Amino acid sequence: MAQNIYDDEGFFAGYATLPRSVEGLDGAPEWPTLRAMLPPLAGRRVVDLGCGYGWFCRWAASEGAASVLGIDLSARMLEKATAHTDDARITYRRADLDQLALDGDVFDVAYSSLTVHYLVHLDALLTQVHRSLVPGGHFVFSAEHPVYTAPSAPQFVTGDVGGTVRRVWPLDGYLREGPRVTNWFADGVVKQHRTIGTYLRLLRDAGFTVRDLCEWGPTDEQVAVVPEWSVEQDRPMFMLVHAVRSD
Amino acid sequence: MAQNIYDDEGFFAGYATLPRSVEGLDGAPEWPTLRAMLPPLAGRRVVDLGCGYGWFCRWAASEGAASVLGIDLSARMLEKATAHTDDARITYRRADLDQLALDGDVFDVAYSSLTVHYLVHLDALLTQVHRSLVPGGHFVFSAEHPVYTAPSAPQFVTGDVGGTVRRVWPLDGYLREGPRVTNWFADGVVKQHRTIGTYLRLLRDAGFTVRDLCEWGPTDEQVAVVPEWSVEQDRPMFMLVHAVRSD
Repeated sequence: MAQNIYDDEGFFAGYATLPRSVEGLDGAPEWPTLRAMLPPLAGRRVVDLGCGYGWFCRWAASEGAASVLGIDLSARMLEKATAHTDDARITYRRADLDQLALDGDVFDVAYSSLTVHYLVHLDALLTQVHRSLVPGGHFVFSAEHPVYTAPSAPQFVTGDVGGTVRRVWPLDGYLREGPRVTNWFADGVVKQHRTIGTYLRLLRDAGFTVRDLCEWGPTDEQVAVVPEWSVEQDRPMFMLVHAVRSD
Repeated sequence: MAQNIYDDEGFFAGYATLPRSVEGLDGAPEWPTLRAMLPPLAGRRVVDLGCGYGWFCRWAASEGAASVLGIDLSARMLEKATAHTDDARITYRRADLDQLALDGDVFDVAYSSLTVHYLVHLDALLTQVHRSLVPGGHFVFSAEHPVYTAPSAPQFVTGDVGGTVRRVWPLDGYLREGPRVTNWFADGVVKQHRTIGTYLRLLRDAGFTVRDLCEWGPTDEQVAVVPEWSVEQDRPMFMLVHAVRSD
């Protein structure tokens, strides 16, 4: 079972202060790139895996989706999500994505934002997503980038590197896959580190073809507005993937 | 035009001391993984892009390849390669892979070991490789991994990281693609840093489907024999790719 950290009171309160919590999709700098990977949603049946507050579900409905199912493990998140909409096309379901079962051929588009790196059984989830999509259906997702999840001490450090004072990302353990415990709004948040090669193999073995993989960084325009994002050029935090059910 | 560093006298002398130069394919720890990506070569027409001393060309012939063309920019390397074989199925050609032209549908398998990260015009090379392969033909290659090529100071450093003394790889500039100048057997060796996302996009746009992408690390057995390889678990040096001409 996946850790239900979003129902931790302290975590939930901290997470609520993030720009992406307050402002929704527009508070997430990677959203324009992720959005560009999505097919038009008008008339489509959409599922959002790890829907959180439901920002994406409401956006998908506003784009004309025929139906939107939001799934999340956190009761607190779903309570917020439910309170924010009375659109009959949107439904929410509480479920552990690590043990999810989905019907076959019921969605045109699956979406997931910054969720899959929490899952222990990503292979099983991908099998479920694949069967739930119609042939040619789209799976667009983001995850924390492997160079972000890998290190034993995942914070930038500044010091003498090669004779010059530099701010660098202390990469280690990249090929040692498995759990990583970090303290982010709460102690003991557990993430699963996987390499890009493993993500690609899991997708292939589940029957997906990868159309695009973006190691996300901010544009110069975004850095001009939010200068602290410039560090993302040194060490991408997000990986965005557009995959298609190919068999 | 690609830099012809392998014809630099000092570089050539230094490179000649590497295990992979002295022992050939068996001196390259990633070779078993790369070999496993290759289809059977018996009766196939094979091209090796950046063939160096010709170790792979001779191995391909020993596997029963119908013909093997080795291409390299370095006259010194080709001189060695030519001196090592009198197999009529093997031919060598001196050419700059950054300006290469190949005939259409003439190869079943293209191979390249640790060469493409030197190329400025990888998009053009991939177009040539694609056209030179028969439909369904294989392109198996290795390159220096982007986390290896990215840093401004690409050497492990040891120091206080997160309150503990650790040996880490000082990652920076991962998303800043372009030339990197390093001093490796000679000053001013120029490599081209590209992200994994960019490699995947260039392959897709050239008409390839990626079957596998391996961020290579040594097995426990290899580390037992050569303990210094254990650092490769922290920061992979090599990326291995198996792509197929899909259109």
